[in-house]
Amino acid sequence: MLTDLYEFSMANGYRQTIDQEQGIFDVFFRKIPDNGSFVICAGLEQVVDILRNFHFSKADVNYLRSLKLFKENFLDYLSDFHFDCQVSAIPEGTPVFPREPLLTIQGPLLQTQLFETIVLNIMNHQSLIATKARRITFAAGDRPVMEFGARRAQGPDSATFGARAAVIGGCTSTSNVLAAEKFGIPAAGTMAHAWVEAFPDELTAFEKWAAVYPDNASLLVDTYDVLKSGVPNAIKVFTELKRAGHKPVGIRIDSGDITQLARGARKMLDDAGFPDAKITASNALDEHVIQALLNEGAPLDNFGVGEKLITSQTSPVLSGVYKLAAIVSDGKVIPKIKVSASREKLTLPGKKQIYRLYKPNTNEAFADVIALSDEVLDRPMEVIKADPLAVERHQSIYNYDAKPLQELVLDGKSVKTDQPNVFAIQKRAKQMLKELPIATQRLFNPDFYPVYMTSRLAALQEKLIEADKPAGVK
Amino acid sequence: MLTDLYEFSMANGYRQTIDQEQGIFDVFFRKIPDNGSFVICAGLEQVVDILRNFHFSKADVNYLRSLKLFKENFLDYLSDFHFDCQVSAIPEGTPVFPREPLLTIQGPLLQTQLFETIVLNIMNHQSLIATKARRITFAAGDRPVMEFGARRAQGPDSATFGARAAVIGGCTSTSNVLAAEKFGIPAAGTMAHAWVEAFPDELTAFEKWAAVYPDNASLLVDTYDVLKSGVPNAIKVFTELKRAGHKPVGIRIDSGDITQLARGARKMLDDAGFPDAKITASNALDEHVIQALLNEGAPLDNFGVGEKLITSQTSPVLSGVYKLAAIVSDGKVIPKIKVSASREKLTLPGKKQIYRLYKPNTNEAFADVIALSDEVLDRPMEVIKADPLAVERHQSIYNYDAKPLQELVLDGKSVKTDQPNVFAIQKRAKQMLKELPIATQRLFNPDFYPVYMTSRLAALQEKLIEADKPAGVK
Repeated sequence: MLTDLYEFSMANGYRQTIDQEQGIFDVFFRKIPDNGSFVICAGLEQVVDILRNFHFSKADVNYLRSLKLFKENFLDYLSDFHFDCQVSAIPEGTPVFPREPLLTIQGPLLQTQLFETIVLNIMNHQSLIATKARRITFAAGDRPVMEFGARRAQGPDSATFGARAAVIGGCTSTSNVLAAEKFGIPAAGTMAHAWVEAFPDELTAFEKWAAVYPDNASLLVDTYDVLKSGVPNAIKVFTELKRAGHKPVGIRIDSGDITQLARGARKMLDDAGFPDAKITASNALDEHVIQALLNEGAPLDNFGVGEKLITSQTSPVLSGVYKLAAIVSDGKVIPKIKVSASREKLTLPGKKQIYRLYKPNTNEAFADVIALSDEVLDRPMEVIKADPLAVERHQSIYNYDAKPLQELVLDGKSVKTDQPNVFAIQKRAKQMLKELPIATQRLFNPDFYPVYMTSRLAALQEKLIEADKPAGVK
Repeated sequence: MLTDLYEFSMANGYRQTIDQEQGIFDVFFRKIPDNGSFVICAGLEQVVDILRNFHFSKADVNYLRSLKLFKENFLDYLSDFHFDCQVSAIPEGTPVFPREPLLTIQGPLLQTQLFETIVLNIMNHQSLIATKARRITFAAGDRPVMEFGARRAQGPDSATFGARAAVIGGCTSTSNVLAAEKFGIPAAGTMAHAWVEAFPDELTAFEKWAAVYPDNASLLVDTYDVLKSGVPNAIKVFTELKRAGHKPVGIRIDSGDITQLARGARKMLDDAGFPDAKITASNALDEHVIQALLNEGAPLDNFGVGEKLITSQTSPVLSGVYKLAAIVSDGKVIPKIKVSASREKLTLPGKKQIYRLYKPNTNEAFADVIALSDEVLDRPMEVIKADPLAVERHQSIYNYDAKPLQELVLDGKSVKTDQPNVFAIQKRAKQMLKELPIATQRLFNPDFYPVYMTSRLAALQEKLIEADKPAGVK
């Protein structure tokens, strides 16, 4: 039922008019959050689950009937809904570029229309957070980044699926126990200020903690004063733990001038014989603050990142769209295009495949090309930039290896590709990022990676633009 | 299970140490999204539902056991969890100000600690969206604003509870059918571009639509060209509908220069005899774009607002916090405070009530005052600004009527205050906004409404700051 009303209105309309036709819809985006050069795609596993199990309860159908908009033959169809589409998609964790269809769905027009809202909701959200997590973990280098954002996420699902996406983008753990349980992510975190305040003083609070968690003593040292109180008290407790044969974990700093506090704390811990005790920073971190802290030489071992990751605060929307690419009528594919006032919104018609092009016999990707799905790529290949606003659009590509990116994932209810676990997806993302030019990956002013379409696809697009022009007013 | 790991770690720690004590926690925020002057609080109904039904499945407890962090006596407690707290809260829809406890929860320390993550998640999210919706509907004046954001929301819950919050903040309807069904909100929306493209031409698409929905013909007119194609085709169809005795609803414009297109469309519709046909605008609207369109004189009747509302795009985080206000030990309330390096983060100790102060015998509110819950307000009343960074903090208030804002909503599982439906909450919000000075409500540089604490609360805060100073290092 998480579906926009107009999807139901259109689906009911199709049922009454062009009921036999099939639709082919693409999911893609045009703009990249935070002025980056790519998006890490995520959310496919949830999309597959939801589509396969798509159905309506009796109460839902009764509710829809109560709107007095829909015919009974449509409500019957919903009551007895059988998912009957094919879904092809780019695997989760793949870095993808503007205009590339992340997911293509083909099936009864009525069904494909109904799925728009939920497919976009899930893919837009998870891809957004995976992309932000990539930026933040990129800034942190090889230091672990823990996802800490549940309390500031935009609702319960946003916390839980956001944590999943954060791991796909490179986080190592989450504070959210539900996400940890559901997706097999390590759960992270220790204490809040409330623990320290609940006891008569900080040292007592730390001692009690160490008594309960002798092998998990990570202490929050900024409730009163990091260097005058928190760290000295932590060292007292660590010394007792060490004497009893336990290894203290470290400290967390959640406020103040983190660089200066971490430097002071590091020296005190080292001098006291705890060079292995880790220092974790939290408090409104994002990729820019982490980069600044590390540039300042802050001796930090881990980061806990909250609201700025879980909401992608500086760029909280990924505007993925779901556009009609073709109608299949009597088995014949009729490519479709959306021409609007702004040329940048031009869509790519027909059923397509996306290829990543590599320098021959290397893992060095240099461009993507979008082709019609029944096309064999030419050698050499004449291509045109997929961005309709690009200036020099034509290009010849002579030598390349091409790997197709979309694969069939669902054929009716039968699953064609198993969905890997989140850390396998994270690994894929890291591997595929290594294949991209390094300049596409920087946080500021990245180089833009070229995305082309084949000359055949470009010709089809032009033909449809021309054909559409007089079609408006009859 | 949507709980940060450290809440479990602390709760288990309390179970092993100070198990008999009670905690009193406050939910409040310090900063207002979009530099506004207030937040519309929302989310209480969901918080009440979740707290009353808080429990752990066998599988959850087994998962927690597998973490090897917790003692069996704690896992037993979770297996047999009984909600046993008192919750007081400011009713949903109330405009609230920084540092005012929106919700106060008192009960076993272990329980109150466990609720932190989920309570903040829900209240932060819904209050954020209700506040953004207030801004957007304020800009729209008395024109209806429809919530259209499901596809760009941060996950499924974000769409559904976000739609609820949007109505609390003033929206009249939602495109999200799940939210419509769940919360009794009118469902809104008509067709997408895909409908128009699925037919051989625009006129056919409109005719087919009108045949299915003769009394609900709201047509999307920007698939090809609004003024040359969309509106003329719409007028043809409207003319047929009128002849057959139906009343056309109107048109929607989703791209281009909306002011100019709406002006042109309005004139064409009027000239063709459809002065009642409504013009709806959508496409990346927010409070600023709506205000600009209306300032330009665009003849618009309705707005459909999507991603910028459902994510509160320009300010996507409400940083509500959950802070320990007191420990109750052997029936004795021990007020607590969090003193940190930044004075602005100072908390308000003890159990409190918030009063809205009105000029005597009027509905004109002029300030709020936070008092200890057992206090009787003095007349005249010496008060101190609650903002620790304010310059002139002391004030005497002579004449006032005072209305308490927090009320008891839950006492154990028993519900003390029924939660009203979303439109009743919207009405409350409108009413309470009318009571505030008008200058607090503008979108840019609003006047800040004064929030005071009583001199007794201020004295308690000062006493605890002093007491905390030496408590750090023993």
